[in-house]
Amino acid sequence: MFEKPTLHTILSPKLLEIYDIKNSIVVVIDVFRATSTIATALYNGATKVIPVAEVNACIEIGKRVGGITAGERDGKVIEGLAHGNSPAEYPRSFIEGKTLVLTTTNGTKLLHMALNEGASEIVTGSFPNLQAVCEFLVKTKKNVVLGCSAWKDRVNIEDALFAGAVINQIKSEFTIHCDSSLMASELYTAQQHKMFEFIRKTTHWHRLAAYGLEKDLEYCVTPNLANILPIYRNGDLVVV
Amino acid sequence: MFEKPTLHTILSPKLLEIYDIKNSIVVVIDVFRATSTIATALYNGATKVIPVAEVNACIEIGKRVGGITAGERDGKVIEGLAHGNSPAEYPRSFIEGKTLVLTTTNGTKLLHMALNEGASEIVTGSFPNLQAVCEFLVKTKKNVVLGCSAWKDRVNIEDALFAGAVINQIKSEFTIHCDSSLMASELYTAQQHKMFEFIRKTTHWHRLAAYGLEKDLEYCVTPNLANILPIYRNGDLVVV
Repeated sequence: MFEKPTLHTILSPKLLEIYDIKNSIVVVIDVFRATSTIATALYNGATKVIPVAEVNACIEIGKRVGGITAGERDGKVIEGLAHGNSPAEYPRSFIEGKTLVLTTTNGTKLLHMALNEGASEIVTGSFPNLQAVCEFLVKTKKNVVLGCSAWKDRVNIEDALFAGAVINQIKSEFTIHCDSSLMASELYTAQQHKMFEFIRKTTHWHRLAAYGLEKDLEYCVTPNLANILPIYRNGDLVVV
Repeated sequence: MFEKPTLHTILSPKLLEIYDIKNSIVVVIDVFRATSTIATALYNGATKVIPVAEVNACIEIGKRVGGITAGERDGKVIEGLAHGNSPAEYPRSFIEGKTLVLTTTNGTKLLHMALNEGASEIVTGSFPNLQAVCEFLVKTKKNVVLGCSAWKDRVNIEDALFAGAVINQIKSEFTIHCDSSLMASELYTAQQHKMFEFIRKTTHWHRLAAYGLEKDLEYCVTPNLANILPIYRNGDLVVV
Protein backbone atom coordinates (compact mmCIF):
# COMPACT_ATOMS: atom_id res chain seq x y z
CA MET A 1 0.00 0.00 0.00
CA PHE A 2 1.33 3.42 -0.94
CA GLU A 3 1.55 5.77 2.00
CA LYS A 4 1.41 9.46 1.30
CA PRO A 5 4.16 11.56 2.86
CA THR A 6 3.20 13.72 5.84
CA LEU A 7 2.92 17.50 5.95
CA HIS A 8 3.19 19.63 9.09
CA THR A 9 3.23 23.38 9.63
CA ILE A 10 5.15 25.10 12.39
CA LEU A 11 3.86 28.59 13.13
CA SER A 12 7.03 29.66 14.97
CA PRO A 13 10.67 28.46 14.96
CA LYS A 14 10.18 27.59 18.65
CA LEU A 15 7.88 24.76 17.59
CA LEU A 16 10.34 23.10 15.19
CA GLU A 17 11.94 20.86 17.83
CA ILE A 18 8.61 19.15 18.54
CA TYR A 19 8.84 17.44 15.16
CA ASP A 20 11.24 14.88 13.79
CA ILE A 21 12.39 16.50 10.57
CA LYS A 22 15.04 14.00 9.55
CA ASN A 23 14.60 13.12 5.88
CA SER A 24 12.06 15.91 5.55
CA ILE A 25 11.99 18.90 3.27
CA VAL A 26 11.76 22.13 5.26
CA VAL A 27 10.27 25.16 3.50
CA VAL A 28 11.56 28.32 5.19
CA ILE A 29 8.87 31.01 4.93
CA ASP A 30 9.51 34.70 5.66
CA VAL A 31 6.94 36.48 3.52
CA PHE A 32 7.66 40.05 4.76
CA ARG A 33 10.16 40.22 3.11
CA ALA A 34 13.23 37.97 3.17
CA THR A 35 12.03 34.95 1.22
CA SER A 36 10.11 37.15 -1.23
CA THR A 37 13.31 39.10 -1.91
CA ILE A 38 15.36 35.90 -2.22
CA ALA A 39 12.97 34.51 -4.86
CA THR A 40 12.94 37.80 -6.72
CA ALA A 41 16.72 38.24 -6.79
CA LEU A 42 17.28 34.68 -8.03
CA TYR A 43 14.45 34.96 -10.55
CA ASN A 44 16.12 38.10 -11.89
CA GLY A 45 19.39 36.29 -12.41
CA ALA A 46 21.36 36.61 -9.16
CA THR A 47 24.03 33.88 -9.08
CA LYS A 48 23.19 33.08 -5.50
CA VAL A 49 21.85 34.54 -2.28
CA ILE A 50 23.82 34.06 0.93
CA PRO A 51 21.50 34.38 3.94
CA VAL A 52 23.19 35.59 7.12
CA ALA A 53 21.83 36.46 10.54
CA GLU A 54 24.32 39.12 11.64
CA VAL A 55 25.30 42.44 10.12
CA ASN A 56 29.04 41.92 10.67
CA ALA A 57 28.93 38.56 8.91
CA CYS A 58 27.08 40.27 6.05
CA ILE A 59 29.80 42.89 5.63
CA GLU A 60 32.63 40.36 5.96
CA ILE A 61 31.14 37.86 3.49
CA GLY A 62 30.15 40.68 1.13
CA LYS A 63 33.80 41.79 0.92
CA ARG A 64 35.12 38.25 0.53
CA VAL A 65 32.81 37.23 -2.32
CA GLY A 66 32.45 40.68 -3.88
CA GLY A 67 28.69 40.57 -3.31
CA ILE A 68 25.90 43.06 -2.77
CA THR A 69 25.28 43.46 0.96
CA ALA A 70 21.72 44.07 2.03
CA GLY A 71 19.73 44.45 5.19
CA GLU A 72 17.33 46.68 7.06
CA ARG A 73 16.32 47.44 10.59
CA ASP A 74 13.11 49.36 11.14
CA GLY A 75 12.66 49.93 7.42
CA LYS A 76 16.04 51.61 6.89
CA VAL A 77 19.22 50.26 5.26
CA ILE A 78 21.64 49.18 8.00
CA GLU A 79 24.80 51.27 8.31
CA GLY A 80 27.68 49.51 6.54
CA LEU A 81 25.41 47.67 4.10
CA ALA A 82 24.68 48.81 0.56
CA HIS A 83 21.02 47.94 0.01
CA GLY A 84 17.70 47.22 1.67
CA ASN A 85 15.34 44.24 2.03
CA SER A 86 12.90 45.26 -0.65
CA PRO A 87 12.35 42.92 -3.62
CA ALA A 88 11.89 46.07 -5.73
CA GLU A 89 15.59 46.85 -5.29
CA TYR A 90 16.61 43.75 -7.27
CA PRO A 91 15.50 44.05 -10.90
CA ARG A 92 17.39 42.06 -13.52
CA SER A 93 19.21 45.18 -14.69
CA PHE A 94 20.85 45.42 -11.28
CA ILE A 95 21.21 41.92 -9.80
CA GLU A 96 21.88 39.63 -12.79
CA GLY A 97 25.12 37.70 -12.36
CA LYS A 98 25.74 39.06 -8.87
CA THR A 99 25.79 37.53 -5.39
CA LEU A 100 23.39 38.95 -2.82
CA VAL A 101 24.42 38.71 0.84
CA LEU A 102 21.21 39.27 2.79
CA THR A 103 20.74 39.69 6.52
CA THR A 104 17.49 38.12 7.62
CA THR A 105 17.30 37.43 11.34
CA ASN A 106 14.15 35.31 11.58
CA GLY A 107 14.58 33.37 8.33
CA THR A 108 18.26 32.57 8.81
CA LYS A 109 17.65 31.37 12.37
CA LEU A 110 15.01 28.91 11.19
CA LEU A 111 17.16 27.80 8.28
CA HIS A 112 20.05 26.94 10.60
CA MET A 113 17.75 25.16 13.02
CA ALA A 114 16.40 23.04 10.17
CA LEU A 115 19.96 22.26 9.10
CA ASN A 116 21.01 21.23 12.61
CA GLU A 117 17.94 19.05 13.06
CA GLY A 118 18.82 17.07 9.95
CA ALA A 119 16.42 18.26 7.28
CA SER A 120 17.22 16.46 4.04
CA GLU A 121 16.51 19.54 1.91
CA ILE A 122 15.82 23.18 2.64
CA VAL A 123 14.06 25.51 0.22
CA THR A 124 12.58 28.97 0.68
CA GLY A 125 8.96 29.82 0.01
CA SER A 126 7.01 33.02 -0.58
CA PHE A 127 4.03 34.07 -2.66
CA PRO A 128 6.22 35.17 -5.59
CA ASN A 129 7.43 31.55 -5.93
CA LEU A 130 4.36 29.69 -4.64
CA GLN A 131 3.89 27.51 -7.70
CA ALA A 132 7.53 26.44 -7.87
CA VAL A 133 7.45 25.37 -4.21
CA CYS A 134 4.24 23.37 -4.69
CA GLU A 135 5.53 21.58 -7.76
CA PHE A 136 8.78 20.67 -6.02
CA LEU A 137 7.00 19.25 -2.94
CA VAL A 138 4.57 17.17 -5.00
CA LYS A 139 7.31 15.86 -7.28
CA THR A 140 9.75 14.97 -4.48
CA LYS A 141 7.23 12.94 -2.42
CA LYS A 142 9.02 13.38 0.89
CA ASN A 143 7.68 14.46 4.28
CA VAL A 144 7.30 18.23 4.43
CA VAL A 145 7.55 20.83 7.18
CA LEU A 146 6.26 24.29 6.26
CA GLY A 147 8.35 26.48 8.56
CA CYS A 148 7.06 29.95 9.37
CA SER A 149 9.95 32.21 10.38
CA ALA A 150 7.63 34.38 12.47
CA TRP A 151 8.89 37.59 14.09
CA LYS A 152 11.14 37.14 17.11
CA ASP A 153 9.40 33.78 17.54
CA ARG A 154 5.96 35.41 17.60
CA VAL A 155 3.49 33.79 15.21
CA ASN A 156 2.67 35.98 12.24
CA ILE A 157 -0.25 35.97 9.85
CA GLU A 158 1.57 36.42 6.56
CA ASP A 159 3.76 33.33 6.91
CA ALA A 160 0.74 31.27 7.99
CA LEU A 161 -1.17 32.54 4.94
CA PHE A 162 1.58 31.28 2.65
CA ALA A 163 1.56 27.89 4.40
CA GLY A 164 -2.19 27.81 3.81
CA ALA A 165 -1.77 28.66 0.13
CA VAL A 166 0.68 25.74 -0.29
CA ILE A 167 -1.55 23.33 1.64
CA ASN A 168 -4.63 24.22 -0.39
CA GLN A 169 -2.77 23.38 -3.59
CA ILE A 170 -1.07 20.15 -2.59
CA LYS A 171 -3.10 18.61 0.25
CA SER A 172 -4.43 15.72 -1.81
CA GLU A 173 -0.87 14.40 -2.15
CA PHE A 174 -0.07 14.40 1.60
CA THR A 175 -1.28 12.97 4.89
CA ILE A 176 -2.05 16.01 7.05
CA HIS A 177 -2.91 15.43 10.71
CA CYS A 178 -1.86 18.84 11.93
CA ASP A 179 -4.08 21.53 13.38
CA SER A 180 -1.59 24.28 12.51
CA SER A 181 -1.94 23.23 8.88
CA LEU A 182 -5.72 23.16 9.15
CA MET A 183 -5.68 26.63 10.72
CA ALA A 184 -3.39 28.02 8.00
CA SER A 185 -5.50 26.43 5.28
CA GLU A 186 -8.78 27.78 6.68
CA LEU A 187 -7.26 31.23 7.08
CA TYR A 188 -6.02 31.33 3.50
CA THR A 189 -9.31 29.99 2.16
CA ALA A 190 -11.19 32.77 3.94
CA GLN A 191 -8.80 35.58 2.94
CA GLN A 192 -7.38 34.63 -0.45
CA HIS A 193 -9.60 36.98 -2.43
CA LYS A 194 -9.02 39.97 -0.17
CA MET A 195 -5.35 39.64 0.69
CA PHE A 196 -4.43 43.30 0.19
CA GLU A 197 -7.15 44.27 2.63
CA PHE A 198 -6.40 41.52 5.16
CA ILE A 199 -2.67 42.09 5.44
CA ARG A 200 -3.40 45.64 6.53
CA LYS A 201 -4.61 44.14 9.82
CA THR A 202 -1.33 42.34 10.60
CA THR A 203 1.23 43.52 13.15
CA HIS A 204 3.95 43.45 10.49
CA TRP A 205 1.97 45.79 8.28
CA HIS A 206 1.80 48.28 11.13
CA ARG A 207 5.55 48.02 11.65
CA LEU A 208 6.48 48.39 7.97
CA ALA A 209 3.73 50.50 6.47
CA ALA A 210 4.93 53.34 8.66
CA TYR A 211 7.97 53.39 6.33
CA GLY A 212 5.89 53.65 3.15
CA LEU A 213 6.34 50.06 2.05
CA GLU A 214 2.75 49.33 1.08
CA LYS A 215 3.59 48.43 -2.53
CA ASP A 216 6.31 46.11 -1.30
CA LEU A 217 3.98 44.27 1.03
CA GLU A 218 1.35 43.91 -1.69
CA TYR A 219 3.96 42.44 -4.04
CA CYS A 220 4.96 40.01 -1.29
CA VAL A 221 1.47 38.46 -1.17
CA THR A 222 0.99 38.23 -4.95
CA PRO A 223 1.52 34.71 -6.30
CA ASN A 224 4.01 33.60 -8.92
CA LEU A 225 5.73 36.79 -10.03
CA ALA A 226 9.18 35.23 -9.46
CA ASN A 227 8.51 31.58 -9.93
CA ILE A 228 11.78 29.78 -9.22
CA LEU A 229 12.88 27.45 -6.41
CA PRO A 230 15.67 28.69 -4.11
CA ILE A 231 17.35 25.62 -2.65
CA TYR A 232 20.02 25.54 0.06
CA ARG A 233 23.44 24.22 -0.94
CA ASN A 234 26.45 24.62 1.36
CA GLY A 235 25.55 28.02 2.74
CA ASP A 236 24.04 29.45 -0.43
CA LEU A 237 20.53 29.66 -1.81
CA VAL A 238 20.68 28.82 -5.50
CA VAL A 239 18.46 27.71 -8.36
CA VAL A 240 19.43 24.23 -9.57
CA MET B 1 -4.94 59.49 28.60
CA PHE B 2 -6.37 56.10 29.47
CA GLU B 3 -4.43 53.22 27.96
CA LYS B 4 -6.24 50.00 27.38
CA PRO B 5 -4.61 46.86 28.73
CA THR B 6 -2.99 44.53 26.19
CA LEU B 7 -4.17 41.11 25.10
CA HIS B 8 -1.98 38.39 23.60
CA THR B 9 -2.69 34.80 22.63
CA ILE B 10 -0.12 32.01 22.83
CA LEU B 11 -1.02 29.05 20.65
CA SER B 12 1.33 26.65 22.47
CA PRO B 13 2.95 26.62 25.97
CA LYS B 14 6.31 26.79 24.19
CA LEU B 15 5.51 30.36 23.18
CA LEU B 16 4.74 31.62 26.70
CA GLU B 17 8.32 32.60 27.49
CA ILE B 18 8.38 35.10 24.61
CA TYR B 19 6.02 37.33 26.58
CA ASP B 20 6.43 39.22 29.82
CA ILE B 21 3.44 38.03 31.81
CA LYS B 22 4.22 39.74 35.09
CA ASN B 23 1.11 41.47 36.41
CA SER B 24 -0.93 39.76 33.69
CA ILE B 25 -3.93 37.50 33.96
CA VAL B 26 -3.28 34.16 32.26
CA VAL B 27 -6.29 32.21 31.03
CA VAL B 28 -5.37 28.52 30.81
CA ILE B 29 -7.36 26.93 27.97
CA ASP B 30 -7.67 23.17 27.46
CA VAL B 31 -10.99 22.78 25.69
CA PHE B 32 -10.80 18.99 25.07
CA ARG B 33 -11.46 18.40 27.94
CA ALA B 34 -9.66 19.49 31.11
CA THR B 35 -10.84 23.08 31.50
CA SER B 36 -14.36 22.18 30.33
CA THR B 37 -14.49 19.49 33.03
CA ILE B 38 -13.06 21.87 35.66
CA ALA B 39 -15.75 24.48 34.91
CA THR B 40 -18.47 21.83 34.96
CA ALA B 41 -17.41 20.23 38.25
CA LEU B 42 -17.18 23.62 39.99
CA TYR B 43 -20.46 24.78 38.47
CA ASN B 44 -22.07 21.65 39.86
CA GLY B 45 -20.86 22.39 43.35
CA ALA B 46 -17.42 20.78 43.71
CA THR B 47 -15.59 22.46 46.61
CA LYS B 48 -12.45 22.71 44.54
CA VAL B 49 -10.50 21.08 41.71
CA ILE B 50 -6.85 20.24 42.25
CA PRO B 51 -5.07 20.03 38.89
CA VAL B 52 -2.06 17.69 38.83
CA ALA B 53 0.24 16.58 36.04
CA GLU B 54 1.21 13.12 37.25
CA VAL B 55 -0.87 10.05 38.04
CA ASN B 56 1.04 9.22 41.25
CA ALA B 57 0.51 12.74 42.58
CA CYS B 58 -3.19 12.38 41.76
CA ILE B 59 -3.47 9.15 43.78
CA GLU B 60 -1.44 10.54 46.69
CA ILE B 61 -3.33 13.85 46.90
CA GLY B 62 -6.65 12.08 46.41
CA LYS B 63 -5.97 9.93 49.49
CA ARG B 64 -4.73 12.85 51.56
CA VAL B 65 -7.72 15.13 50.91
CA GLY B 66 -10.33 12.41 50.53
CA GLY B 67 -11.04 13.57 46.97
CA ILE B 68 -12.31 12.03 43.77
CA THR B 69 -9.33 11.07 41.59
CA ALA B 70 -9.77 11.40 37.86
CA GLY B 71 -7.76 11.00 34.71
CA GLU B 72 -7.63 9.26 31.35
CA ARG B 73 -5.10 8.13 28.86
CA ASP B 74 -6.29 7.25 25.38
CA GLY B 75 -9.92 7.67 26.38
CA LYS B 76 -9.79 5.14 29.28
CA VAL B 77 -9.72 5.78 33.05
CA ILE B 78 -6.14 5.43 34.27
CA GLU B 79 -5.46 2.42 36.52
CA GLY B 80 -5.49 3.53 40.15
CA LEU B 81 -7.84 6.47 39.54
CA ALA B 82 -11.60 6.39 40.10
CA HIS B 83 -13.03 8.48 37.26
CA GLY B 84 -12.46 9.84 33.77
CA ASN B 85 -11.97 13.25 32.15
CA SER B 86 -15.50 13.65 30.88
CA PRO B 87 -17.55 16.63 32.10
CA ALA B 88 -20.59 14.31 31.89
CA GLU B 89 -19.21 12.34 34.84
CA TYR B 90 -19.62 15.29 37.20
CA PRO B 91 -23.31 16.13 37.66
CA ARG B 92 -24.36 17.94 40.83
CA SER B 93 -25.78 14.70 42.30
CA PHE B 94 -22.28 13.26 42.28
CA ILE B 95 -19.73 16.07 42.71
CA GLU B 96 -21.43 18.60 45.02
CA GLY B 97 -19.34 19.29 48.14
CA LYS B 98 -16.48 17.09 46.95
CA THR B 99 -12.91 17.76 45.88
CA LEU B 100 -11.87 16.65 42.39
CA VAL B 101 -8.20 15.76 41.85
CA LEU B 102 -7.75 15.84 38.08
CA THR B 103 -4.72 14.81 36.04
CA THR B 104 -4.32 17.02 33.03
CA THR B 105 -0.89 16.98 31.46
CA ASN B 106 -1.06 19.87 29.02
CA GLY B 107 -3.17 22.21 31.14
CA THR B 108 -1.24 21.68 34.39
CA LYS B 109 2.06 22.23 32.64
CA LEU B 110 0.93 25.59 31.27
CA LEU B 111 -0.56 26.59 34.61
CA HIS B 112 2.73 25.94 36.42
CA MET B 113 4.66 27.82 33.73
CA ALA B 114 2.37 30.81 34.17
CA LEU B 115 2.85 30.63 37.93
CA ASN B 116 6.65 30.50 37.61
CA GLU B 117 6.70 33.39 35.17
CA GLY B 118 4.88 35.61 37.64
CA ALA B 119 1.30 35.83 36.36
CA SER B 120 -0.71 37.94 38.78
CA GLU B 121 -3.80 35.78 38.40
CA ILE B 122 -4.56 32.46 36.72
CA VAL B 123 -8.03 31.37 35.67
CA THR B 124 -9.23 28.54 33.44
CA GLY B 125 -11.31 29.03 30.34
CA SER B 126 -13.51 26.83 28.17
CA PHE B 127 -16.69 27.27 26.16
CA PRO B 128 -18.89 26.15 29.09
CA ASN B 129 -17.62 29.18 31.06
CA LEU B 130 -16.94 31.62 28.19
CA GLN B 131 -19.10 34.44 29.50
CA ALA B 132 -17.69 34.30 33.03
CA VAL B 133 -14.13 34.54 31.66
CA CYS B 134 -15.00 37.51 29.43
CA GLU B 135 -16.73 39.40 32.23
CA PHE B 136 -13.79 38.85 34.58
CA LEU B 137 -11.24 40.06 32.02
CA VAL B 138 -13.21 43.18 31.15
CA LYS B 139 -13.89 44.01 34.79
CA THR B 140 -10.30 43.47 35.98
CA LYS B 141 -8.68 45.72 33.32
CA LYS B 142 -5.27 44.05 33.46
CA ASN B 143 -3.09 42.77 30.65
CA VAL B 144 -4.27 39.36 29.46
CA VAL B 145 -2.58 36.30 27.99
CA LEU B 146 -4.93 33.70 26.51
CA GLY B 147 -2.88 30.53 26.96
CA CYS B 148 -3.71 27.57 24.76
CA SER B 149 -2.55 24.33 26.42
CA ALA B 150 -2.19 22.62 23.05
CA TRP B 151 -1.32 18.91 22.84
CA LYS B 152 2.25 17.97 23.68
CA ASP B 153 3.11 21.54 22.64
CA ARG B 154 1.50 21.11 19.22
CA VAL B 155 -0.95 23.89 18.38
CA ASN B 156 -4.56 22.75 18.42
CA ILE B 157 -7.65 24.20 16.82
CA GLU B 158 -10.10 23.90 19.69
CA ASP B 159 -8.06 25.99 22.13
CA ALA B 160 -7.47 28.62 19.44
CA LEU B 161 -11.23 28.71 18.74
CA PHE B 162 -11.91 29.48 22.38
CA ALA B 163 -9.30 32.25 22.36
CA GLY B 164 -11.06 33.64 19.29
CA ALA B 165 -14.46 33.50 21.01
CA VAL B 166 -13.07 35.51 23.96
CA ILE B 167 -11.35 38.03 21.70
CA ASN B 168 -14.47 38.60 19.61
CA GLN B 169 -16.41 39.49 22.76
CA ILE B 170 -13.91 41.72 24.53
CA LYS B 171 -11.62 43.19 21.88
CA SER B 172 -12.97 46.72 22.16
CA GLU B 173 -11.64 46.87 25.74
CA PHE B 174 -8.05 45.83 24.89
CA THR B 175 -5.08 46.85 22.76
CA ILE B 176 -4.41 43.83 20.56
CA HIS B 177 -1.27 43.86 18.40
CA CYS B 178 -0.92 40.12 18.12
CA ASP B 179 -1.24 38.03 14.98
CA SER B 180 -2.04 34.88 16.98
CA SER B 181 -5.04 36.73 18.39
CA LEU B 182 -6.06 37.92 14.93
CA MET B 183 -5.75 34.38 13.59
CA ALA B 184 -7.83 32.94 16.46
CA SER B 185 -10.43 35.65 16.04
CA GLU B 186 -10.74 35.14 12.26
CA LEU B 187 -10.96 31.38 12.73
CA TYR B 188 -13.75 31.66 15.28
CA THR B 189 -15.62 34.22 13.20
CA ALA B 190 -15.57 31.86 10.22
CA GLN B 191 -16.54 28.73 12.16
CA GLN B 192 -18.77 29.87 15.01
CA HIS B 193 -22.01 28.82 13.37
CA LYS B 194 -20.76 25.39 12.33
CA MET B 195 -18.67 24.35 15.28
CA PHE B 196 -19.95 20.77 15.55
CA GLU B 197 -19.01 20.23 11.92
CA PHE B 198 -15.65 22.00 12.12
CA ILE B 199 -14.32 20.23 15.21
CA ARG B 200 -14.73 16.94 13.36
CA LYS B 201 -11.76 18.02 11.24
CA THR B 202 -9.38 18.48 14.20
CA THR B 203 -6.64 16.04 15.17
CA HIS B 204 -8.05 15.80 18.71
CA TRP B 205 -11.43 14.75 17.38
CA HIS B 206 -9.76 11.90 15.53
CA ARG B 207 -7.95 10.81 18.68
CA LEU B 208 -11.01 10.98 20.96
CA ALA B 209 -13.94 10.21 18.69
CA ALA B 210 -12.51 6.73 18.28
CA TYR B 211 -13.55 6.24 21.93
CA GLY B 212 -17.15 7.30 21.35
CA LEU B 213 -16.83 10.72 22.94
CA GLU B 214 -18.66 12.75 20.29
CA LYS B 215 -21.31 14.06 22.72
CA ASP B 216 -18.55 15.09 25.12
CA LEU B 217 -16.71 17.04 22.46
CA GLU B 218 -19.87 18.78 21.33
CA TYR B 219 -20.60 19.81 24.92
CA CYS B 220 -17.04 21.17 25.18
CA VAL B 221 -17.62 23.67 22.36
CA THR B 222 -21.05 24.84 23.54
CA PRO B 223 -20.97 28.23 25.32
CA ASN B 224 -22.10 29.02 28.84
CA LEU B 225 -23.52 25.75 30.16
CA ALA B 226 -21.34 25.99 33.30
CA ASN B 227 -20.82 29.67 33.65
CA ILE B 228 -18.53 30.15 36.64
CA LEU B 229 -14.92 31.35 36.95
CA PRO B 230 -12.33 28.84 38.22
CA ILE B 231 -9.50 30.83 39.76
CA TYR B 232 -6.17 29.49 41.01
CA ARG B 233 -5.49 29.86 44.73
CA ASN B 234 -2.56 28.03 46.37
CA GLY B 235 -2.71 24.86 44.28
CA ASP B 236 -6.49 24.71 43.96
CA LEU B 237 -8.98 25.91 41.38
CA VAL B 238 -11.93 27.42 43.20
CA VAL B 239 -14.85 29.77 42.65
CA VAL B 240 -14.47 32.92 44.74
